[in-house]
Amino acid sequence: MKFNKHLQDIVTYEAGKPIELVVREFGVSPSEIIKLASNENPFGCSKKVQEAVREIIPNMSLYPDDSMWKLKHAISNRFSVKDDNIIIGAGSDQIIEFAMHAKSSKDGSILTNSVTFAMYEIYAKHVGAKVIKTSSMQHDLDEFYELYQKHNPDIIFLCTPNNPTGDAIDSDDMTRFLKKIDSDTLVVVDGAYIEYGAYKDKSKAISVKELIWQFDNVLYLGTFSKIYGLGGMRVGYGVASADIIKILYKLRPPFNITTLSLEAASVALSDEQFIQECLVSNFSQMKRYENFALKNNIKIINSYTNFITFLLSERYNSSDLAYFLLKKGMIIRDLKGYGLNAVRITIGKPAQNDIFFKLMSEYL
Amino acid sequence: MKFNKHLQDIVTYEAGKPIELVVREFGVSPSEIIKLASNENPFGCSKKVQEAVREIIPNMSLYPDDSMWKLKHAISNRFSVKDDNIIIGAGSDQIIEFAMHAKSSKDGSILTNSVTFAMYEIYAKHVGAKVIKTSSMQHDLDEFYELYQKHNPDIIFLCTPNNPTGDAIDSDDMTRFLKKIDSDTLVVVDGAYIEYGAYKDKSKAISVKELIWQFDNVLYLGTFSKIYGLGGMRVGYGVASADIIKILYKLRPPFNITTLSLEAASVALSDEQFIQECLVSNFSQMKRYENFALKNNIKIINSYTNFITFLLSERYNSSDLAYFLLKKGMIIRDLKGYGLNAVRITIGKPAQNDIFFKLMSEYL
Repeated sequence: MKFNKHLQDIVTYEAGKPIELVVREFGVSPSEIIKLASNENPFGCSKKVQEAVREIIPNMSLYPDDSMWKLKHAISNRFSVKDDNIIIGAGSDQIIEFAMHAKSSKDGSILTNSVTFAMYEIYAKHVGAKVIKTSSMQHDLDEFYELYQKHNPDIIFLCTPNNPTGDAIDSDDMTRFLKKIDSDTLVVVDGAYIEYGAYKDKSKAISVKELIWQFDNVLYLGTFSKIYGLGGMRVGYGVASADIIKILYKLRPPFNITTLSLEAASVALSDEQFIQECLVSNFSQMKRYENFALKNNIKIINSYTNFITFLLSERYNSSDLAYFLLKKGMIIRDLKGYGLNAVRITIGKPAQNDIFFKLMSEYL
Repeated sequence: MKFNKHLQDIVTYEAGKPIELVVREFGVSPSEIIKLASNENPFGCSKKVQEAVREIIPNMSLYPDDSMWKLKHAISNRFSVKDDNIIIGAGSDQIIEFAMHAKSSKDGSILTNSVTFAMYEIYAKHVGAKVIKTSSMQHDLDEFYELYQKHNPDIIFLCTPNNPTGDAIDSDDMTRFLKKIDSDTLVVVDGAYIEYGAYKDKSKAISVKELIWQFDNVLYLGTFSKIYGLGGMRVGYGVASADIIKILYKLRPPFNITTLSLEAASVALSDEQFIQECLVSNFSQMKRYENFALKNNIKIINSYTNFITFLLSERYNSSDLAYFLLKKGMIIRDLKGYGLNAVRITIGKPAQNDIFFKLMSEYL
């Protein structure tokens, strides 16, 4: 059977290895496996969320409230915007997909950082759009502007803090940059890790309300998969002008969020104490990673997230290191696929990090 | 901001009204609302499924196993096919979406029944494909063949049993039809309600293994949203030749099924007793609807599903009836949007059906 030609170019996203796979492949017992590969919250999710979901388990048979009234309202409230500034996706990935189908095409292009979240490029290939990338590993807005002027892309993706490098854009720099961009170019500001960035350094914080108020061509993305500890529930959101949201809504499949996920995300927003505790632990534990790197002459990028990237010297091979750890039940992320001899480690709980340092010391 | 032009034609799917909406709009207490609108299983889902999901609630923070090994294996086992004949979607809707993007385009067309599941047309509009429809309300395979020869569509959709009419195709007739179709035309056989159809009448049953063995251009769709009682968890599946599955996989976003949904669906397949009990109740209760219709001179379509369609005489207006019931806390589905003066009622539990007959008698 013949299929549409542009599918040939689509590559599949390489996900962090799930625990189940390591159990099957290496026979390690599930309880002994430590996964520091996918930037999940090592503290899981809030107990309040768990209780709320437990309560509504019998509702699994009922289709979700497709108006998503409760969750939308919780999000619009959080950002002091209106409900019609919000769209909810099965992960913020799905909103990237909507944006791509709405604004780009096989005759168009998108502009991204050289090393960034892989789904921008994958969805670009879904529509056959060209992907223009900066050369700088960390976001260099001057280079972004230069490439914008040269290629006039349909969409610019800014990921701040950036995955998988951990660097973040100064919000004042971003504002200056956005002012220079034509209002017909969609700018996606992906803030999947922004809660971490804003906690570490206020100059990296984004006022979502001001952002979409000031720029009606900006689509801000947030997620429940990181600090909110709901990576398994697939909930992200987009905030933008009502005009953009209305168009993206046309591409939203009905019931794109499960009944339990809607409840989990709604309740997650209300447990601020849990979030604060996770942030405090994350950055105190990150200090240990920074010290470990310093002691062992490993280069790192200053991280505004819940992960840290170790840039390895030529003496070491990131794939080899990742495999060494994997066999011992420790899953981290090899960044070879991103063209880097580097590994990305999610900041775990203290005891998990102890084991990482121990194994890493064995390897070095 | 300018967006891609074909978005103008996209209409949004009109979902059955959720309970939350009736609570908000009419102030009816949630416990008093009866929803017979979205063909959910009135018995909910299996207790075994509920227990299994309750167990893994702490895993909400972990990304799903993106290989979906456990669920895929449970499905391939069920149908005696291989794992690479299976793709899992966020509802079978998502697989319809993949198929549309893989095989059709704005230069192409699809062929469907005149009255059928609305998502075929909606996804066709996503890619800008033309929608050719039969004139017959129930599947008439001769007419399908005639239109196939005339228009040479990219995809033919057969929905059996059909939603929202409830009629089903004889499997022998389907085989004869498929033999006449060119191997480059994709035929989607949507069996969302097939468990009901096969229970009522063996001649409507489909051997999925034989189907995809015999026809390498057929994509069979199944769902966990109906008899398995997991409408809120968004899990459906496609079964086809490995070549078709491989292409559809290119369009699958990573982590398209939640962690809890994967577990729920896997366990659901193992509780055959629950399914049998639901089937027995469904068809004994359906008899009551048939009798009620007969007594009240309401025309029905012989249904092979968990719903029944009442075709109203000119004396009554389906929207008016649906609104009358809605105000009293009973949600059914008005089919005015499908061009029919008809209502579709999900077969409920005995006590729910009692209330329907009582309210309906008040109305008539």
